[in-house]
Amino acid sequence: MFSHVKDLQFEARPDAPDAGFAARLQEVLGGKWGEMTVANQYLFQGWSCRLPGKYKDLLLDVGTEEVGHVEMICTMIARLLDGAPLSIQETAAEDNPMLAAIYGGSNPAHFIHAGGGPLPVDSNGVPWNGSYITASGNLLADFHLNVTAEAQGRLQVARLFHMTDDPGVKQMLRFLLARDTMHQNMWLAAIEQLKEDGLEEMPVPEAFPDAEQENSVAYQFINFSAGEESAEGKWASGPTPDGKAEFSYATRPMTSAPEPVLPAADPRLHGTPPLVGQPTPDGWRR
Amino acid sequence: MFSHVKDLQFEARPDAPDAGFAARLQEVLGGKWGEMTVANQYLFQGWSCRLPGKYKDLLLDVGTEEVGHVEMICTMIARLLDGAPLSIQETAAEDNPMLAAIYGGSNPAHFIHAGGGPLPVDSNGVPWNGSYITASGNLLADFHLNVTAEAQGRLQVARLFHMTDDPGVKQMLRFLLARDTMHQNMWLAAIEQLKEDGLEEMPVPEAFPDAEQENSVAYQFINFSAGEESAEGKWASGPTPDGKAEFSYATRPMTSAPEPVLPAADPRLHGTPPLVGQPTPDGWRR
Amino acid sequence: MFSHVKDLQFEARPDAPDAGFAARLQEVLGGKWGEMTVANQYLFQGWSCRLPGKYKDLLLDVGTEEVGHVEMICTMIARLLDGAPLSIQETAAEDNPMLAAIYGGSNPAHFIHAGGGPLPVDSNGVPWNGSYITASGNLLADFHLNVTAEAQGRLQVARLFHMTDDPGVKQMLRFLLARDTMHQNMWLAAIEQLKEDGLEEMPVPEAFPDAEQENSVAYQFINFSAGEESAEGKWASGPTPDGKAEFSYATRPMTSAPEPVLPAADPRLHGTPPLVGQPTPDGWRR
Amino acid sequence: MFSHVKDLQFEARPDAPDAGFAARLQEVLGGKWGEMTVANQYLFQGWSCRLPGKYKDLLLDVGTEEVGHVEMICTMIARLLDGAPLSIQETAAEDNPMLAAIYGGSNPAHFIHAGGGPLPVDSNGVPWNGSYITASGNLLADFHLNVTAEAQGRLQVARLFHMTDDPGVKQMLRFLLARDTMHQNMWLAAIEQLKEDGLEEMPVPEAFPDAEQENSVAYQFINFSAGEESAEGKWASGPTPDGKAEFSYATRPMTSAPEPVLPAADPRLHGTPPLVGQPTPDGWRR
Amino acid sequence: MFSHVKDLQFEARPDAPDAGFAARLQEVLGGKWGEMTVANQYLFQGWSCRLPGKYKDLLLDVGTEEVGHVEMICTMIARLLDGAPLSIQETAAEDNPMLAAIYGGSNPAHFIHAGGGPLPVDSNGVPWNGSYITASGNLLADFHLNVTAEAQGRLQVARLFHMTDDPGVKQMLRFLLARDTMHQNMWLAAIEQLKEDGLEEMPVPEAFPDAEQENSVAYQFINFSAGEESAEGKWASGPTPDGKAEFSYATRPMTSAPEPVLPAADPRLHGTPPLVGQPTPDGWRR
Amino acid sequence: MFSHVKDLQFEARPDAPDAGFAARLQEVLGGKWGEMTVANQYLFQGWSCRLPGKYKDLLLDVGTEEVGHVEMICTMIARLLDGAPLSIQETAAEDNPMLAAIYGGSNPAHFIHAGGGPLPVDSNGVPWNGSYITASGNLLADFHLNVTAEAQGRLQVARLFHMTDDPGVKQMLRFLLARDTMHQNMWLAAIEQLKEDGLEEMPVPEAFPDAEQENSVAYQFINFSAGEESAEGKWASGPTPDGKAEFSYATRPMTSAPEPVLPAADPRLHGTPPLVGQPTPDGWRR
Repeated sequence: MFSHVKDLQFEARPDAPDAGFAARLQEVLGGKWGEMTVANQYLFQGWSCRLPGKYKDLLLDVGTEEVGHVEMICTMIARLLDGAPLSIQETAAEDNPMLAAIYGGSNPAHFIHAGGGPLPVDSNGVPWNGSYITASGNLLADFHLNVTAEAQGRLQVARLFHMTDDPGVKQMLRFLLARDTMHQNMWLAAIEQLKEDGLEEMPVPEAFPDAEQENSVAYQFINFSAGEESAEGKWASGPTPDGKAEFSYATRPMTSAPEPVLPAADPRLHGTPPLVGQPTPDGWRR
Repeated sequence: MFSHVKDLQFEARPDAPDAGFAARLQEVLGGKWGEMTVANQYLFQGWSCRLPGKYKDLLLDVGTEEVGHVEMICTMIARLLDGAPLSIQETAAEDNPMLAAIYGGSNPAHFIHAGGGPLPVDSNGVPWNGSYITASGNLLADFHLNVTAEAQGRLQVARLFHMTDDPGVKQMLRFLLARDTMHQNMWLAAIEQLKEDGLEEMPVPEAFPDAEQENSVAYQFINFSAGEESAEGKWASGPTPDGKAEFSYATRPMTSAPEPVLPAADPRLHGTPPLVGQPTPDGWRR
Repeated sequence: MFSHVKDLQFEARPDAPDAGFAARLQEVLGGKWGEMTVANQYLFQGWSCRLPGKYKDLLLDVGTEEVGHVEMICTMIARLLDGAPLSIQETAAEDNPMLAAIYGGSNPAHFIHAGGGPLPVDSNGVPWNGSYITASGNLLADFHLNVTAEAQGRLQVARLFHMTDDPGVKQMLRFLLARDTMHQNMWLAAIEQLKEDGLEEMPVPEAFPDAEQENSVAYQFINFSAGEESAEGKWASGPTPDGKAEFSYATRPMTSAPEPVLPAADPRLHGTPPLVGQPTPDGWRR
Repeated sequence: MFSHVKDLQFEARPDAPDAGFAARLQEVLGGKWGEMTVANQYLFQGWSCRLPGKYKDLLLDVGTEEVGHVEMICTMIARLLDGAPLSIQETAAEDNPMLAAIYGGSNPAHFIHAGGGPLPVDSNGVPWNGSYITASGNLLADFHLNVTAEAQGRLQVARLFHMTDDPGVKQMLRFLLARDTMHQNMWLAAIEQLKEDGLEEMPVPEAFPDAEQENSVAYQFINFSAGEESAEGKWASGPTPDGKAEFSYATRPMTSAPEPVLPAADPRLHGTPPLVGQPTPDGWRR
Repeated sequence: MFSHVKDLQFEARPDAPDAGFAARLQEVLGGKWGEMTVANQYLFQGWSCRLPGKYKDLLLDVGTEEVGHVEMICTMIARLLDGAPLSIQETAAEDNPMLAAIYGGSNPAHFIHAGGGPLPVDSNGVPWNGSYITASGNLLADFHLNVTAEAQGRLQVARLFHMTDDPGVKQMLRFLLARDTMHQNMWLAAIEQLKEDGLEEMPVPEAFPDAEQENSVAYQFINFSAGEESAEGKWASGPTPDGKAEFSYATRPMTSAPEPVLPAADPRLHGTPPLVGQPTPDGWRR
Repeated sequence: MFSHVKDLQFEARPDAPDAGFAARLQEVLGGKWGEMTVANQYLFQGWSCRLPGKYKDLLLDVGTEEVGHVEMICTMIARLLDGAPLSIQETAAEDNPMLAAIYGGSNPAHFIHAGGGPLPVDSNGVPWNGSYITASGNLLADFHLNVTAEAQGRLQVARLFHMTDDPGVKQMLRFLLARDTMHQNMWLAAIEQLKEDGLEEMPVPEAFPDAEQENSVAYQFINFSAGEESAEGKWASGPTPDGKAEFSYATRPMTSAPEPVLPAADPRLHGTPPLVGQPTPDGWRR
């Protein structure tokens, strides 16, 4: 259960309107790596966590913080949308090429659908969707995804930082950059903690018995393209990060199976070949 | 540019048809973490790679291998679909509850749309889409995603391994499990290589200047839920994984910004409040 | 900003596992009219609300409650998924047609993707998406949508109530039914409050000047199908609900515009007709 | 069954081309609240209507009218797209900032995909989809949705009215505004008719027995956020709109259920904790 | 503009309920090649048609017929959904494995969302969307798509014909099969008519000047896979269907361009390599 | 299985950056008719092909070529994105309206998400998805789709050719135009080959017995709109393309079925009418 505090975690106040930047800022609100993703991902992971205690608390703490980040960015977008010209005619009336750029680069649905407010969409207006998040039940797999989410998220905020000169916007982005620094470190620490607690190791899932996999190719790099530059990396020789083997390098893929011939389908599916029991033009008897 | 060899990398031959399992196997073909995702993700990362040499070669090698995995699973699904009863009436005619389960658990589009072949969809029939992949231009962020993709992928294959008794299917899954073991190790090694080559460090993006972020909260865990179990983890105290600081723990979120009052929108957007310059029922002058 | 309390608002504890019902319950979690929709819709409406005071507080109160409902249903689904047979073979081993039905009617991704936990999807496994919500900036339009959301939501919960015999599940549904009763009443009262406060009237948007619309058809029912049963309703004669006019009834649509002939497109778009300035086979000179 | 008349219901003829406005006009064609939505929604409701007579006729009359509105807007968009510069070079050649704004603000697929014609998409180019419509089988729930659709629709047309100076475009918008006025009134009248005919009451579904819901919270407002401004509305005290009770106000949410501990999942799902029967680092015995 | 006639074009009356087949029948209602697709596709092509006369009339005639097919299938689905058991418990109570199969194979949203009616979705419950249709402005390209749509559509109806024993359902499918026969022939005839009228030829778009394309590869088959079976077809030698050339066959792809080295990105995008002007580990100077 | 060659099939090198054209070029990369579609479509058709020999080889040859076209266009987009101004401020600083147009017309996710690289999306930023492709199992139906894909594809490339003056971009488009010329011819030849080999005829599926369809309407054009211009085409009289009949023309649709009255739904679905066995306001006894 949740409760809401009216204050924002950090100020979201631009110095001036900019509908073009509002459209871009949507990427870190409703895009694949935006705040809606991390908020929902951590909460679903927390709600699905079958281990009470510090891991569940961690997930719910951070998921709850991220819902507040959604709120901050929504507030910022609403303010950035103020005062935009609504039509090409208004845009042209002012002799200001920046206005033409803003008109062209803005999200029309910000005005038509949302009345000057934020939308749960990305920087192209594509709606956020539930496939952006994963709560797999396996904490090590999920914590690696969470590191990724914070890395991609911080990368996107850093790029947005260079796309505006507005001091107020930059101030909020500075805050988000810092929290993403924290969260990258936090999930990396959580990975260490999981290992220290003996709960999981690489490769995920550790508990799947090694003997059941086809071990002849479990530590072999296979070269599928012309050139052998890929042999020069740490992934092609030397010890493997899971500490169980040495990498080997296969210079050419070896096939294990001859070309398959699929059986003819049920004739009621009306595929090609249409009938069974007759030679085909290629001499293959169905 | 690519060329195709007719042999499969590994045999894809079930011992018996099973349309219900064919539907489930779609998850690792066209689901979020399936082979279409890794194939496209690594190829896009490779095509976007601005650094010639071992990294670009690595990405294209592995992306090319994964297209072959798409082919293997497609072949397996086509064979699993053979001989399924097409109607409830046929299902009921055999006195076999397993057939009823298979009818219910199969993907109708396998027959109606694909004529007994695979589809680019997940285990619920939802189409694969391009938002499943990311090629960010930043290799460290992407390699973390790639570790994740292989961890989630191996987890899903391991689960599928327990969902069938078919020896031929299990054999192909053993091969996929082994390659996912390799690929988890490979991307972890690539992360180390990137650091050793001095190209990137955590937090991503390393090159964003520390002084530009709001450092007061860059290493602080903030407790947003009742209870303090989250204080017990390595993310709440001790050195941070990026080696730059010590974690601190804030027992209660501190707000930085008072409740925002949004300015009234352009009256031509017909929002609420509708007019400007008048007191509202709540006594707030617009 | 938000904080999380570990207790649930209401108990979510089934008496027995049922993976088939877990799949169905997803409709009121991640479906168009599920709890993710109302939670996000009310919060976005609250964050976009430009009028401080009771309306903004109302929206944030109820949106925050709904996030807790998401949590309750997630918990219920995780518990319903326990102990399901993972394969057709296990299903068949038990001589129990109910298990065959459950296998067929379950969501495979609950196991393969989510490891036995909930997913942000509907009862067919289609992901929730941001287009399900609207925060238009106009409170009267949005409150009508909110009444609808609670009506459709309660209807769906009532249907699910008849789809299970599990006492623990039914208990949680009773709670949700009651809250939906409250929320339907609440949004109806909020509509009255808006009118009483003089903020908006029907038709939305009230502030758009009547003189600017084509008033000759603003209160006219037009019969577009064979038969005139539609003339028998309150929408075809008598006073209009907005109190401004009387309904009239046009027995046959009258066209206002002759068949349009579109101008030929830019020849560089290579449409049909391909060229300009020549007679076409139909005798129409482009 | 349907038949087509070649005349338009109302003229759709702009005074001048404007590809930027054509992109925006798509919102009321293929957006969530556009004409494709109301046309399909009313027709599906009509086709699913199990009550012959005036309600079914009403739904099919209006659904059929709305297909004609789709046609009108398609015609308008095709004409607005004429004569746009196809390239940045052409745009720059004219010394006209308005052209730059139009180039930037247009939908490229209007030209590349549709050859200068309309598309079934919204103002950002996102395709219309079937989840935009609901035909629930319950007419009261659906009529509330229909009021909403016409309110949101009229709001969007009113906003578009301020985004152009083109007299011909404005003329068509005037017509649509008037029909939306009619349709808001019509669905409100239909709600009254349903009640007068004794078919349904609030809360939907009326027929669900009151005794089966958890009545202790069926009329209680619960305060989930700091501050108590929400107590000042008609939703917090006084009679409820369904005429069955008085609202009460709970100043603080009361939890009904202690923190749930989820059972460990099937070990074959390889979740965390990975094993059963052992103490975990948090001291919780699985 | 349209008008509605209450009679159906053909009877839609099953002999018995079958919720499992209702789910499958959705494929030809709301699937990629279903009636919603052809109805919308032909109407959009008609509304976008810039050539008045027989082509525009053809498109609107057939598009209008297809809306009536949507109505027929909707009616059939509503009737097929009657009398299904709502729960696993009811299903198990009857000692009938067919009921278990139906429960498992039905679409839960048919009951929960649509109250026993049709939905605008495919056989897996994925919503129909606007990207299923194309109206390109070029009639020859579109008529080829229309032949395809009718071929895929008839194929799917033929498959469904074998998935049921219900005489009433089969009767309606017989009607649809016949109309698809007509429509395949019709679009093929329309292709001939377009050519006879001198409006377009293959390759589309004919009007693009031959001299502007890279003619060295305009009629050359290139072998990209091991083996040369592809040389045995009419596509590898002999005259080309457009009557302009002879096919040639290249046994091995010849590359035209050396491996590209992408320039380093703007450093503010924080890609890899992060900096400019320094040698990288691979010796490539940025 | 596949292998990768580092050279491109054709040079992809623009003479100058143009982020606006990069956004447009995405249509033929990740749009409905782009290279991702044909690559995946032909490969899935090839993997599903149950007839070994020339057809399977053809499909895999061309599918493999198209993956290389994806690579070419990705390379071109990465280069077109170089040097774009990142902000409105930078845009305005240069006194160049072309830059304003480019800023407005570019895809923000190219920078924020992809760091200056391509994305698997269309020209509006909507992700590519698996429903764009079909592999039906019936080669004649699929080859008609493939002709269409190449016709729509060439049409779009031809349009893009007129949207840029960049010589390097035009050069690559010339190559793509030529390959689309080849591929249109190729699939037309493959249709002839299928017929010559006796594998399939029109109407698809040929093997469905004529006697099972409702032959009274199998060759009849039905006029559903005002006016009879549609009678003037080859589809309304004369021999049918399948060589089996003569077209006939019905001037007015004849209905086969009276208005259906749907049975009342299960009362537990709470539809309208809510109860059974009582007269309704319309006098219809449920």
